[in-house]
Amino acid sequence: MSLPRIAVDAMGGDEGVRVMVEGAALARRRHDRFKFLLVGDEERIKSALDAHPNLRAASEILHSTDVVAGDEKPTQALRRAKTTSMGMAINAVKQGDAGAAVSAGNTGALMAMSKLALRTMPGIDRPALSAIMPTLGDNDVVMLDLGANTECDARNLVQFAIMGAAYARIITGRDNPRVRLLNIGSEDNKGTEDLQLASAQLKEAAASLAMSFDGYVEADKINRGEVDVVVTDGFSGNIALKGIEGTARFVADLLRRSFASSLRSKFGFLVSRPATELLKHHLDPNNHNGAVFLGLNGVVVKSHGSASAIGVANAVAVTARLLENDLTKRIAADLDRLGGSHLGRTAKAAE
Amino acid sequence: MSLPRIAVDAMGGDEGVRVMVEGAALARRRHDRFKFLLVGDEERIKSALDAHPNLRAASEILHSTDVVAGDEKPTQALRRAKTTSMGMAINAVKQGDAGAAVSAGNTGALMAMSKLALRTMPGIDRPALSAIMPTLGDNDVVMLDLGANTECDARNLVQFAIMGAAYARIITGRDNPRVRLLNIGSEDNKGTEDLQLASAQLKEAAASLAMSFDGYVEADKINRGEVDVVVTDGFSGNIALKGIEGTARFVADLLRRSFASSLRSKFGFLVSRPATELLKHHLDPNNHNGAVFLGLNGVVVKSHGSASAIGVANAVAVTARLLENDLTKRIAADLDRLGGSHLGRTAKAAE
Repeated sequence: MSLPRIAVDAMGGDEGVRVMVEGAALARRRHDRFKFLLVGDEERIKSALDAHPNLRAASEILHSTDVVAGDEKPTQALRRAKTTSMGMAINAVKQGDAGAAVSAGNTGALMAMSKLALRTMPGIDRPALSAIMPTLGDNDVVMLDLGANTECDARNLVQFAIMGAAYARIITGRDNPRVRLLNIGSEDNKGTEDLQLASAQLKEAAASLAMSFDGYVEADKINRGEVDVVVTDGFSGNIALKGIEGTARFVADLLRRSFASSLRSKFGFLVSRPATELLKHHLDPNNHNGAVFLGLNGVVVKSHGSASAIGVANAVAVTARLLENDLTKRIAADLDRLGGSHLGRTAKAAE
Repeated sequence: MSLPRIAVDAMGGDEGVRVMVEGAALARRRHDRFKFLLVGDEERIKSALDAHPNLRAASEILHSTDVVAGDEKPTQALRRAKTTSMGMAINAVKQGDAGAAVSAGNTGALMAMSKLALRTMPGIDRPALSAIMPTLGDNDVVMLDLGANTECDARNLVQFAIMGAAYARIITGRDNPRVRLLNIGSEDNKGTEDLQLASAQLKEAAASLAMSFDGYVEADKINRGEVDVVVTDGFSGNIALKGIEGTARFVADLLRRSFASSLRSKFGFLVSRPATELLKHHLDPNNHNGAVFLGLNGVVVKSHGSASAIGVANAVAVTARLLENDLTKRIAADLDRLGGSHLGRTAKAAE
């Protein structure tokens, strides 16, 4: 099967062109069926490609001099959708020139532009931002929404569960991913009315949705390896994600400090290097890079602004897997299966 | 100054009487001015006291055979407030027989009983559950609310900020603790309307409140040592707290696994023992045990259900510090200072 090419916004991210091109080149070295549309300043892309003849052979350049700034308001960026590298990469997906877009630029602008150009899928009210995180189990866990929608109702949460399950089936290989709603307790009466309604609806429909749904998960259980999809609103999801990232860094900092606290510990650190390197590898955000906007008519992936070339390569690899496995069609099929059901009422409508 | 005695619900917690009594004895060994009212089954308390003559000399026993169950609904527990060890410990505070109560039992029941018996302070609409967490800085950080109030408006958040600052002044020794609202970004337009309103109100009033307020903090910055009080609603706070606790445990588990991955790493672990023990000590929840209900006419402290005797001793020590420093009076004074101001409107009232 030939894979549709991937549009890369070469200008986004803290490091810009060099890292984006090096990341794409790394991904291409791993899988030679990848093809690219590199969007951005032609001169700079060409010069970055000099070091990567392998990637050059698999890429076309789409020239653009305009760039979305990191601190730019989405509404402002939207006005320059036709001239910025980010906007042009997304537009390539809309036009069918590329199968998916990857950008390390401004998240809010990327979401706004993607929504406007690609539109949300039929049956989805709001797209969601999802990411994968490491666990103690055999596979990563998918979490959504991570900040695209500050407030969500039961209907949004049910749709997020369906999209998250489709994503998790691709990356975990499980036919019936274990889906849970993030809550502050496991009892039925915990949390908001919308959470309780979403839980009741998902319990009823899980069998026909190819997911295993079993109510709530608390934030301290996200990474135990016992769940595959954690569904929540964008406010709580962002707080959970950043709380987890910040704590992993906090513990690593404490560990570094502890190892430096005595000569014996310093020696111990040298001997334990393979162990701490293994830990570092497991926790390195670059190894879980690539947040996916779910619910659009097209695949858009956000690479972290500070990702390394290895991180960018991983985001490209995620993008390719979603293309190969036709993520969008899978979500559409699940939504179809629900067609006539009463799923997705809001708490208010149910009263 | 003689310290009012502390009522200990000796029946709560996973381990019950033995751990609660041992914890009180430990605390008493550290500070011999502590006096206790031990509430629970007299026979069992007496037998636990056999090992702790020092504590026995400083304690009175209040007999009760009835116990609040761990999974009991707060409404149900409320009906037995007069006969359960938890209810009787709180009642002792109400009657002035004790200055504060400590329990390791059912959190929801403890909150409900405390609210009913002690009432919220004038000027406070809802009490909040607060806890302290370790940071990379010189002092711990106070976070509230942690689950007592699932949904909060701007008025609640402003009141939480005032209570949290009073608490932080006691435990950090800072005259103007650095207070922040938990949000999903640092820009003014981030988060809910209530968060934005609370931020505007606190900015205006911070100078007269003996706190340094500077807008928002994101969840990955909670433990960097840059803030002293993190204010949020009970849903987000519970998720942040559990996300942090869960991740600390997750990283520790990964580290253990990494150290066990090769012979060299196993040897490295033995050599590095002092470093990993230091880390373990820093992250041990027992060293930060003692969640405080703020905003009541009296001090009530929740010890974690699975806390060790050392954890219980730490919760008792926190309780004693709050009594010594007259937490309740301090909060009342801050609220008085705000008396005539327009602080604490809700987003709706401000429209």
